[in-house]
Order: sequence, then structure tokens, then C-alpha cells
Amino acid sequence: MEAIERHLTANREEHLKQLTQLLSIPSISALSEHKPDVRKAAEFIRDALTKAGFDHAAIMETGGHPVVYADWLHVEGKPTVLVYGHYDVQPVDPLQLWKTPPFEPDIRDNQIFARGASDDKGPTFMHIKALESILQVEGELPVNIKFCIEGEEEVGSANLDSFLEAHKSQFAADLVLISDTTMLGPDQPSICYGLRGLAACQIDLQTANTDLHSGIYGGAVPNAIHALVELLVSLHSPDGTITVDGFYDGVAKLSEAEQKEYASLDHDDEAYRKSLGLPALHGEPGYTTLERLWARPTLEINGIYGGFQGEGTKTVIPNEAHAKITCRLVPNQDPKNILDKIEAHITKHTPEGATVTFTRADTGHPYLAPYDHPAIQLAADAYTHAYGIKAVFTRMGGSIPVVETFSQLFHIPVVLMGFGLNDENFHAPNEHFSLDNFDKGLRTLCYYYKHLANAL
Amino acid sequence: MEAIERHLTANREEHLKQLTQLLSIPSISALSEHKPDVRKAAEFIRDALTKAGFDHAAIMETGGHPVVYADWLHVEGKPTVLVYGHYDVQPVDPLQLWKTPPFEPDIRDNQIFARGASDDKGPTFMHIKALESILQVEGELPVNIKFCIEGEEEVGSANLDSFLEAHKSQFAADLVLISDTTMLGPDQPSICYGLRGLAACQIDLQTANTDLHSGIYGGAVPNAIHALVELLVSLHSPDGTITVDGFYDGVAKLSEAEQKEYASLDHDDEAYRKSLGLPALHGEPGYTTLERLWARPTLEINGIYGGFQGEGTKTVIPNEAHAKITCRLVPNQDPKNILDKIEAHITKHTPEGATVTFTRADTGHPYLAPYDHPAIQLAADAYTHAYGIKAVFTRMGGSIPVVETFSQLFHIPVVLMGFGLNDENFHAPNEHFSLDNFDKGLRTLCYYYKHLANAL
Repeated sequence: MEAIERHLTANREEHLKQLTQLLSIPSISALSEHKPDVRKAAEFIRDALTKAGFDHAAIMETGGHPVVYADWLHVEGKPTVLVYGHYDVQPVDPLQLWKTPPFEPDIRDNQIFARGASDDKGPTFMHIKALESILQVEGELPVNIKFCIEGEEEVGSANLDSFLEAHKSQFAADLVLISDTTMLGPDQPSICYGLRGLAACQIDLQTANTDLHSGIYGGAVPNAIHALVELLVSLHSPDGTITVDGFYDGVAKLSEAEQKEYASLDHDDEAYRKSLGLPALHGEPGYTTLERLWARPTLEINGIYGGFQGEGTKTVIPNEAHAKITCRLVPNQDPKNILDKIEAHITKHTPEGATVTFTRADTGHPYLAPYDHPAIQLAADAYTHAYGIKAVFTRMGGSIPVVETFSQLFHIPVVLMGFGLNDENFHAPNEHFSLDNFDKGLRTLCYYYKHLANAL
Repeated sequence: MEAIERHLTANREEHLKQLTQLLSIPSISALSEHKPDVRKAAEFIRDALTKAGFDHAAIMETGGHPVVYADWLHVEGKPTVLVYGHYDVQPVDPLQLWKTPPFEPDIRDNQIFARGASDDKGPTFMHIKALESILQVEGELPVNIKFCIEGEEEVGSANLDSFLEAHKSQFAADLVLISDTTMLGPDQPSICYGLRGLAACQIDLQTANTDLHSGIYGGAVPNAIHALVELLVSLHSPDGTITVDGFYDGVAKLSEAEQKEYASLDHDDEAYRKSLGLPALHGEPGYTTLERLWARPTLEINGIYGGFQGEGTKTVIPNEAHAKITCRLVPNQDPKNILDKIEAHITKHTPEGATVTFTRADTGHPYLAPYDHPAIQLAADAYTHAYGIKAVFTRMGGSIPVVETFSQLFHIPVVLMGFGLNDENFHAPNEHFSLDNFDKGLRTLCYYYKHLANAL
């Protein structure tokens, strides 16, 4: 490792120069006028992979922006790591809020400011440079490597699933490694090993065949809003527990180790409450805030509407009312099965005088890597080596669709080694990336790649 | 009465000719381009009153369209009746749905088609002609009369309260007589002796200081929609009873006579349910539909909104949610007191983690004439005389603001003798008025005016 680390130090300026070139390309995938720039970034990645010593570096077409592939498969019998990242970036408006132009990278306070610096050009570039450094110092890699660097992550990766499905054997691996998440804090490296899934639906409730006048009909007929709120309230008990029959069936319990790990994290409920301007927190009884966020499912009403929304008063008895619902799911809940259960609940609890149409929408499976998988434990060791601080194991309350894609398609662990920080303004003006994490992250990755073959 | 009825028959054609002239004036109070027409209708009424033999016929200015006044006060010691009506009409769009132009009155199937025919030029005109006929036949009226014919009823009578307040002694009377309601059916004359009042409010509920991402925060924080539906559900029990503490305090009980009267009316719950396309009716237990509509108070949610209302899914935990509420009130509920009670309920039941802003809006007092008041009983006799059918006593579930105005200002009974029918398309294309009710109504009014002095 010492030689590699000396190499990283010696080449720091050159690495940053190359990163600056990559960050100068306005590869905004959402804006069609930037389509040539998106391709330019793909070409830059392809060329960087070739220069780094990878084989078969190629731009592969999809239904949208292309995927960059490359591999290094010269250590037979050793595991193959699929490195995922993305070279596309978010739009930059409002442009006037940027202190320096988004595509003219500027280093100040040991941070590099540019659109994509943290999400995800910086971290993706680090993988290339880490592996290049090992190759240059040692002449070979300790594991086999494949790259999958896409250009549509910021627009929902719409073509990735079908692309990977179509090239399944080409991208087959033993492990997926992604650096597109954040660390818990600047001095707290973390490994996310679980994500929640999603199940979405809509409830459209109807009563009479038209809106009715509350003077003429009020008191004798059902009101669609009354029926809807009655129905919606039936989904939770007041303490926040979800009352849909069987909703919690099969929900994986937290291990004692996980409970201890979460409890050891520096989470302050009171500061959290205050930062959100809340009179009180609210959640399922018997769980801590982090447990609620990471390991427990939810059922949230995301939108409700019915009747009169204008200024003043309208004496109407609405004949329809609507609600949008999403659930965050945890292992081992199945989105389709959850929607079945919600539909059954809705059917059972629809108040007399009302009819309900239940419409299914987006779904996504929860993801949970085996907490004690050696590839994940090794990630912690790698951080400890580079940062001098033990990494903590966390989950995320949200979903990362590509993680689910890889997990569902290849049935292999997905290791999330984040180097970004939550305050680095990804998706906002003045996005930046800490060069401290760039430096330590390179060392973390080199350590990880070096030791992976032995750990598995 | 016989001479008067002969006079009515003899002058029928002339009466209809004059009514046609009045209906030809497009006195649409809501449209400023019709302001001259509105005044033209006022002038027509003033002149008709003068020609009929009334004194002091005058156009009196208000903050908006004028009020037409006239009086006949020559029988000292006899009661004074204030006749209220309005000469303004609703807009006519969609114009293409009219079979004949709205301001070119057309008689077909013994109905006169024109905007304002039923609401309220026809019935208002009938009072003038009934009294004119008595004057012409008998040389004097049996009671003193004042007219208050306004031009802003279709735009909310915004100036009437302050106008009457400013001219209180000029309009003072012993009784107000209004023909601006409908009969229960073509063969069922009815006298409405009670109206419900109104109390409106808005609930604005807030949780966090911003919308939150359901992946990052879901499970640990309150959701404004969850809190709102929980709060709203607390306002009713599932059977429809309002659970606001003290809401029913002082609600006047139906007399046995009223219960019998309502039960005798030809109301068919099943036909009513079907006509509204409802799976089931819904209302306060222990009361019939008509009792629920006429004599029981309501609390209706007229509108609800919060979070995402667009197409598809948005994984948001909304930080605010809103509801609009109106109550229909019955004697002896006080609107302000009811809003106090609702506010107290809201304060008490606001879920932890949420704050609520309670905003008061429109209020109106319920109105109930003494059921057995001789002026009201006489109205039934008058219908019986003219129609050969006993009039029934009904209430209305809605409010008529002018009734409350007269009741609150003068503390005198308001007698509502309607001659319109519910299917006569007032406020819609092809408004019309039954000439059968025009003829019988004139006789009803003549009988009423003739016998009122002796009845009181």
C-alpha cells in the first residue's frame, strides 16, 4: 500500500487536472441541447479508462444516453467487481447563485466547486484513478474489474434496466461497487448496506353523481371528503402503527448488532426535531428515530384533494376526493404483495355510501446486503485504514433504483462506499466535493481493491 | 273574492303582456355592461307600482344597483306588509342551450320561457298585479303595503343590509312577504317557515418547516395530511353524528306536529338515493331524510388539499394541509358560538407534532318562523283556496340571506310563499315559469292579502 499511496501523492496534481477536464464538460442529461456534451463526457470516461489500462473500453448505445464499458479480466479465479457510476449531471439553474461558473471548476478551501464534483463525476473518477494507480505501481490488479458508467442517472436511469438485461453476461460480476451515496459526516465514513423499497397507489373515492349543494342536501347524503378521511385514518393507529392487515408480515427484525450500531451513532432527536421546525417527532412506537428511518416500513399520504380549494367559502358537498399514497418498504416486504394488502384494506374499510377506485403505481424492492458479508466488512476496514476512523454501518430510508436493478438482476451484493457529504449541494448551486475525501477516498478504494480477493 | 277573480281572468292577457315587457329587459346584475338594463328594470317596476296605484314609488340608490320602493298606507290600525322581491336576473350563458332567446319571452305548454321568469320577476310581478287587482275592484287595500324590490339578489345582496339599516323606519312593517322560493311540486303548494343558518371556517395545519422527502424522513416525522385527516375524523362519529362538544346544545326539537307534517310529505328515500347515484344515503341516526335536511344541523368538509396533486407519484411528506368547513345551523344555534366550539374542538384534538390555524369565515343565523303563527297558517289557507290542495309546511336546508336580514333587523315574521318549481331552470338555460302557478298564485295572493288583517 505504501508504494501506491506514494504514487497517489505524486500524481495528485495530474489527477485533479484530469478531474477538472471532466468537470468542465456540461453533461446535463435532462437538457436535449446538451446531448453532444453528454456524449463528450462519455468519450472522456472511455478514453480515461483506456489510458488507465483497461480493455474493451467502449461507448455502448442505449435507448438514451450511452453507457461506458471497460474491463480488466486478467486474474482468473479471482472475484469480479462491477463498478457503477454516472457521468451525467443535474441542470445548473439558478445560474446566478453560483459563485463560480458550474463548468469552470474552482478549487477553494480544499474543495473543488463544479456541477458533478460530488454527484457523481468526482467519486466515479476516483475509481478509475485508484485502479490505474494499482496497475501502474503493481502491473496488475488483484481482482477482475468491469465498469458500467451511465449517462442517465439524473433522469431516472430509464434505459438502464433493459440495457443490463440485454447485456447480462457482459456485466456479470460477483459484487457491485458504487460510490454515489454520502458519508454520515466529514469525520464519519459510513457504509450503507440497506435501502427501502417503494409501493405507490392512488385512491379515488366517489359518492354522488355530482357535487351537491350543502343547503339542499346537507345532512342526508354522504360527503366524499368525510368518507375519504375516514378511510385514510383507518390505515394507521394514532401512534403511527400501520393497521393494514398483514402489512408487517415478514418484516426483517433488526439484529442486536444493528441495534447497537445505530444506537452508537451520534443522532440527537432534539436537534433533529428543532432543525425541522417540528413541535414533536412522530413515529412507530418501540423504535428509535434511526430504526424508524432505516429499518421500518412506512405508509405516507403524499397528497390529498377534493372539493373546493379556492379563496373563501363554497357550500358544496363534494362527490369525489382523492389521495396519493406511497409506502417505504423494508426486507422482506414485497411491493406487489403490499399493494394487494392495501387494496384489501381499502375495499374492506370503504365507508357506506362511497365507492373507491384503487390504482397501482410505482414499485421498487427493498435492498439489504448481508450486514456481515466480508465485502461489506472490508469496506469498513478500508475506511479505517485511510481515515483513521472506523466506518459505521447505516441504511438509507430512500431508494436507489440502480441498486435494486443490480440486486434483482445479478443477485449479488451491492457495496455502497460513499465519499460525498450531505452539504455538498449536489442538485443545487455551488456543488462541491471535498478534496480531503478525494485524497482519503482514493486510499480507501485502493486498500479495498487490494484486499478484496483475500477477504472474499 | 269572486269579483277579484273575475278581474284577474279578464286582465290575464294584459298582465302577461306586461310581464313579457319586464322579462324582455336583460337586467343581469352580475355584468357591468348590463348596468343600464338593470336600471331600466327598476324603472319598469317603479312605473308599474305607480300605475297600480301605489304612492311614493321611487328608485332609491344603494352602493350598487337601486332598490325600488313604493307604499300604500291608507288603512290606519291595520297591519303593514313589506313585500320583498328582486328585479335582477342571473347571466344567461351558455346562450346556445336556450331554445328561444332568454330576453324574448316565449309562451309554450302554458309556461313562459325567459331569464327571470321564475326567479324572480314573475313572482314579484304577481304581487304588484294581485294588489292592483284588489285596488281596482275594491278601491282600497285591506292592509298597508310597502315594497322593497332590489336589484342585487343574484350577486349576494351586498348592499341591502346597510341600505335597510339606513332606512329602517321607512321599511318598518309587521310582516315580510316574499315569493322567491319553490313549491314542493306542481300539485303541492308549500310554505317554507324555516331556513338553516351558516357558520364557515378554515383549518390550516402545519407540521415541519418544509416538505420532507419520504425516503429520508419517512417514519420519524409527522405528516400534515395524516394529522389533518385524524383531526377531521374526530369531528364526526362514523354514523354521522357531530362530535364537537356542545354542538347540539339548544337545538330546537321538532314538534310532534312538525314530525307528522314531514312524515306526511311524499318523500321517497330510495328514489332520492337513486337520483343522486348514491350507493347509500348517510345521515344522523334517529331522523328521517327531511328531518335531517330541514331541522338538523350539519358540519360538512367542503374542501381538502395538501401535498402532491399532480399526475403520478411524488414521495413527499407534506408539511401543510388544509380543510374548508361549513355548518348548516338550525334554531337555536348561534353561528359565532358554534365556531367557538369548533375551534375549541380543533385545539383539543390537534395531533401531536402539528399546529393549526383556525380562520373564521361567513356566518348566518338560522331562521324559524313560529309554525303556528296566524300569518303563516293563513298562507296555507290561501293556497288551499286557490289550488284546492292544502299547502304543506316545509323548511329549507339552505339559507336565504335576505330572510335573515329582515328577521334580524325588524324582528318580524317572514312569510315565504313560493310559486316557482324546482325544475324551472332558474340559474340555467331555458328558465321558465308555469302559467298555471301564475294564475293560481295570483288568486292565492289576493286571498292572502284580503284575509290577513282579520287573521292577525
